[in-house]
Amino acid sequence: MPKPELESVRKDLESQYRDFQAKKLSLNMARGKPGRDQLRLSAAMLDALNSSSDYRASTGDDCRNYGLPDGLPEMRRLFADMMEVDEKNVIVGGNSSLNMMFDTVSCGMTHGFAGCRPWGKQEHLRFLCPAPGYDRHFAITEYFGFDLITIPMTPEGPDMDAVEQAVKDPAVKGIWCVPKYQNPTGITFSDETVRRFARLKPAAKDFRIFWDNAYCVHDLTDTPDHLLSLWDECRRAGSQELAFYFASTSKITFPGAGVAAMAAAEGNLRDIRKHYFYQTIGPDKLNQLRHVAFLKNIDGVLAQMARHRALIAPKFRAVLAKLDSQLSGKGVAEWTRPRGGYFISVDVMPGCARRVVSLCAGAGVKLTGAGATFPYGKDPRDSNIRIAPTFPPVEELEQAMDLFCISVQLAAAEKLLSRRKSSGSLKARVASSL
Amino acid sequence: MPKPELESVRKDLESQYRDFQAKKLSLNMARGKPGRDQLRLSAAMLDALNSSSDYRASTGDDCRNYGLPDGLPEMRRLFADMMEVDEKNVIVGGNSSLNMMFDTVSCGMTHGFAGCRPWGKQEHLRFLCPAPGYDRHFAITEYFGFDLITIPMTPEGPDMDAVEQAVKDPAVKGIWCVPKYQNPTGITFSDETVRRFARLKPAAKDFRIFWDNAYCVHDLTDTPDHLLSLWDECRRAGSQELAFYFASTSKITFPGAGVAAMAAAEGNLRDIRKHYFYQTIGPDKLNQLRHVAFLKNIDGVLAQMARHRALIAPKFRAVLAKLDSQLSGKGVAEWTRPRGGYFISVDVMPGCARRVVSLCAGAGVKLTGAGATFPYGKDPRDSNIRIAPTFPPVEELEQAMDLFCISVQLAAAEKLLSRRKSSGSLKARVASSL
Repeated sequence: MPKPELESVRKDLESQYRDFQAKKLSLNMARGKPGRDQLRLSAAMLDALNSSSDYRASTGDDCRNYGLPDGLPEMRRLFADMMEVDEKNVIVGGNSSLNMMFDTVSCGMTHGFAGCRPWGKQEHLRFLCPAPGYDRHFAITEYFGFDLITIPMTPEGPDMDAVEQAVKDPAVKGIWCVPKYQNPTGITFSDETVRRFARLKPAAKDFRIFWDNAYCVHDLTDTPDHLLSLWDECRRAGSQELAFYFASTSKITFPGAGVAAMAAAEGNLRDIRKHYFYQTIGPDKLNQLRHVAFLKNIDGVLAQMARHRALIAPKFRAVLAKLDSQLSGKGVAEWTRPRGGYFISVDVMPGCARRVVSLCAGAGVKLTGAGATFPYGKDPRDSNIRIAPTFPPVEELEQAMDLFCISVQLAAAEKLLSRRKSSGSLKARVASSL
Repeated sequence: MPKPELESVRKDLESQYRDFQAKKLSLNMARGKPGRDQLRLSAAMLDALNSSSDYRASTGDDCRNYGLPDGLPEMRRLFADMMEVDEKNVIVGGNSSLNMMFDTVSCGMTHGFAGCRPWGKQEHLRFLCPAPGYDRHFAITEYFGFDLITIPMTPEGPDMDAVEQAVKDPAVKGIWCVPKYQNPTGITFSDETVRRFARLKPAAKDFRIFWDNAYCVHDLTDTPDHLLSLWDECRRAGSQELAFYFASTSKITFPGAGVAAMAAAEGNLRDIRKHYFYQTIGPDKLNQLRHVAFLKNIDGVLAQMARHRALIAPKFRAVLAKLDSQLSGKGVAEWTRPRGGYFISVDVMPGCARRVVSLCAGAGVKLTGAGATFPYGKDPRDSNIRIAPTFPPVEELEQAMDLFCISVQLAAAEKLLSRRKSSGSLKARVASSL
């Protein structure tokens, strides 16, 4: 596009942007937060227990009192089915799977795995971070002092050539994975990726895959992705101790008052059970009892997820429709089309992501910070933006996406013009010196 | 008592003991577990939330969703009043205050306090353990590799001369305290003890008092103990950063599904908040909302505690009545008369505690393991036994105490006879060699 034309496009976009500012929007698409209509889907769970309930688990234990540190058997069964692992390998925790991941890293730091020296007593710790990825994963390992190594994400999952190369370094202690409907790309790891994970031969005996299956049942279409079971593949490969598995009901029932769980093979389980033995008097079993009464089993979970889908699939479609209609073919952005999960990932013109997020904020729409999806919050190309469509109602989401699309184009126009301007001004300087 | 008389006493006790074995009792006095009647006192709390509730905190936040990492303001207020600290210094956690203590030690290990090197990077760590004390406190610091230093308990609290001497060692990083109705002695730290704690001048800048006020409102008489506020005393002494404060509703509402909290002064709070920022997406706020709806405020807490007292004070009286009537003046045991809390501490004849616990177990009554109240589970005098009267009904408790009193006397008789026997056999050997 010639410069004068681009200038006129920018002016037009600026004018549209100012119209948006005048609307004084106040919308938040920053985090994968379920909407109020989704929260209502679990309202009946709060009727499951009242002053005349029995409070007993299937074991006969009174769930109001101490006991059952691994959780209710019926809750462990439910998570085993969700995570596709063995029930006896599941430990149910509190209300946050992130907390269980943090505690697992912390256990590695202070006590170590597989009889190795605690990570905290080793030097130059490194952790693999497939990016774009989940900022709170990366933040945990950054907090514990690991060097974060970026692994590029591909449409098949993390670049496994890079992973296989990286784990030759014995200082590399683990990798963060969201294997299904990854945060933020929404892609699901291919069968070959899962098999290569199961066959991984890390130099460090205490290297662990943190397999955060946060969106394992969070399908949004009639053609859901299928994730191969890492648990089964590891058993086949004789590498059961390679991975820790995590999941929760945060996006099935209540984000702030759900139930989390983890699973691990025998050796890892020994280390983790010992840690929890000292750490806690046991999880909140009444909340487990509520969940079991409400969800019952994996079929109940899937039925609940179909109800979530009915509410949020239209939001994903609305976001994609806006991106398609307003940005397609303009060369200013690319985006993913996830079949599940909580996010859509948009790559805007390199060098523009911060500007887009700042423009949106300037007109009342809060997005996930640019760079957040990369280690240290720094996207080397300043290109990736995570869209979280679930929280706002559809009509607000459409407004927000209109603003987003204008901002993407405006940032691109600014970028292109500033490049030409700088080269232009060089020419001008050369000309004036003649 | 001459030997033949002692032999006959033992035979009589053995016969009584066998009668008990024939009763095939199965009772548990091992842990401070509330009875079923106590759990019923909080049944109405489970009616506080149902499918038609509002779910909003006083801030307007939806308690079902993410947010409010420090907890609901109304819950923080309630804990501030219980712990006698400032509301803004309270962080509400999950269902276990032990978990918050563990996490605080863990934070010290991996990140350190007051800008000091993390404990995990320092050498020869030591922790002070007033004993008899709470086994699960000691276990946390043992798990993290601290050398546990026994501090004798006095009727005024920990021996402060010993504490003041010990903290001159910069490797000493903290002390465990249950300042009111201590576990297991039931004593409350005197004003002078609290003041000496506030004026403590530890060599280590990262030395911390772990002030576990687990029984702060757990009075059992009309003349309750009064604990001086360490928070206020530290402010007076300018030593606010000396202590971490902990409490929970585990023995106010439900042990397995209560709410825990901690408090700390500004510097410590910064370290702890940072830790929690990475560790969790926030506590279960619905359970806080239930608690606030049910307990309302500190007056509600005290009214609830009066109802607990009505149920468990008779159990404490029953235990003391048995000890008084069956062991008084026999020189085989001494015991405490707590005005609150969950335990009675019995010191049997030195060298007899293990035998007493084993005798009781042999007739179906499970007690806290002998030695459990000391660091490493080793009571150097093998004398202290913790009685937890709250769980069994009074009639079962009385049976269990009859057995306990017989076992204490039987163990003493055995001990005395074995001493005489061994000295006897030496005489016999000397005589036969003549």
